[in-house]
Amino acid sequence: MATRPAEEPRSGCPINVTVEVIGDHWSLLVLRDVMFAERRHFRVLQGLSEEGIASNILADRLRRLVAAGMLTREDQGRGHRVTYSLTEASIQLVPVMAALGEWGFRNRKTARPHRLRSEILVAGGPALWEDFMADLRTVHLGAPPPPGDGPTATERMAAAYDEAIAREG
Amino acid sequence: MATRPAEEPRSGCPINVTVEVIGDHWSLLVLRDVMFAERRHFRVLQGLSEEGIASNILADRLRRLVAAGMLTREDQGRGHRVTYSLTEASIQLVPVMAALGEWGFRNRKTARPHRLRSEILVAGGPALWEDFMADLRTVHLGAPPPPGDGPTATERMAAAYDEAIAREG
Repeated sequence: MATRPAEEPRSGCPINVTVEVIGDHWSLLVLRDVMFAERRHFRVLQGLSEEGIASNILADRLRRLVAAGMLTREDQGRGHRVTYSLTEASIQLVPVMAALGEWGFRNRKTARPHRLRSEILVAGGPALWEDFMADLRTVHLGAPPPPGDGPTATERMAAAYDEAIAREG
Repeated sequence: MATRPAEEPRSGCPINVTVEVIGDHWSLLVLRDVMFAERRHFRVLQGLSEEGIASNILADRLRRLVAAGMLTREDQGRGHRVTYSLTEASIQLVPVMAALGEWGFRNRKTARPHRLRSEILVAGGPALWEDFMADLRTVHLGAPPPPGDGPTATERMAAAYDEAIAREG
């Protein structure tokens, strides 16, 4: 995406077409924050960015992600903040995010709270990812909530995180 | 890696530390070609690059990948080609590559031969990925071959590909 958003991909390899869309540091981090931290407004995405994304970079990446069909942008006009939502295509990045996180905590030094969240996501495996994707479809696409009375995947992950923090002190 | 190879990561999030290392279009494609096509020499990596990587970009990315501990570089001197090998850290990207490929063939138009290879890798799941990683450790790290008489993961994937091609005509 970084170089040729509307053109033909450089090759038809599934890995290539994916990295042409999200193989950009900042694009992936923006999607991560929309996905896992439910940051859906420009100011929140910028102000809470742990990696310190610059506002011109954030504006550029949001524009590119919308153009690539990875985010939708809703502008309700004066007095309302513009809201960004995930799309079905970006919701399907959940397993990619899990794989990236797992590589990270296995191969690099990471911070404990972040690592815990990644470990919980990875430990849940495809079943948890599917449930979390269903939650994201409810929040971002307006899909009906997943059936059942139990806690949602989002709630289960938050509870597991709180437990781990309490246990490890 | 693109911006701060030897510095502290911008945050300790496992997704961030990973994309700081491989969140670069060309770095990922170079690793893909070393991993799946066993291209281990500069000229082969450049000459056979389907995405048409430029030689200065390839040289830069190889240098960065070595600096980041994702490749090792063996120079046997005059008359021998320099050989690049995967490291344990880059071998552990196999599940990431599978996740990237799956997103690609599910969400974008891809070319059939490449898609078949990705589908076979994804369908095999973690058991196949582990076996393939064992093959890569043999080829790139000099580990003893995996025990057992059966075909290796690499051979099984090649056979599945040939079968699919033959079946689909």
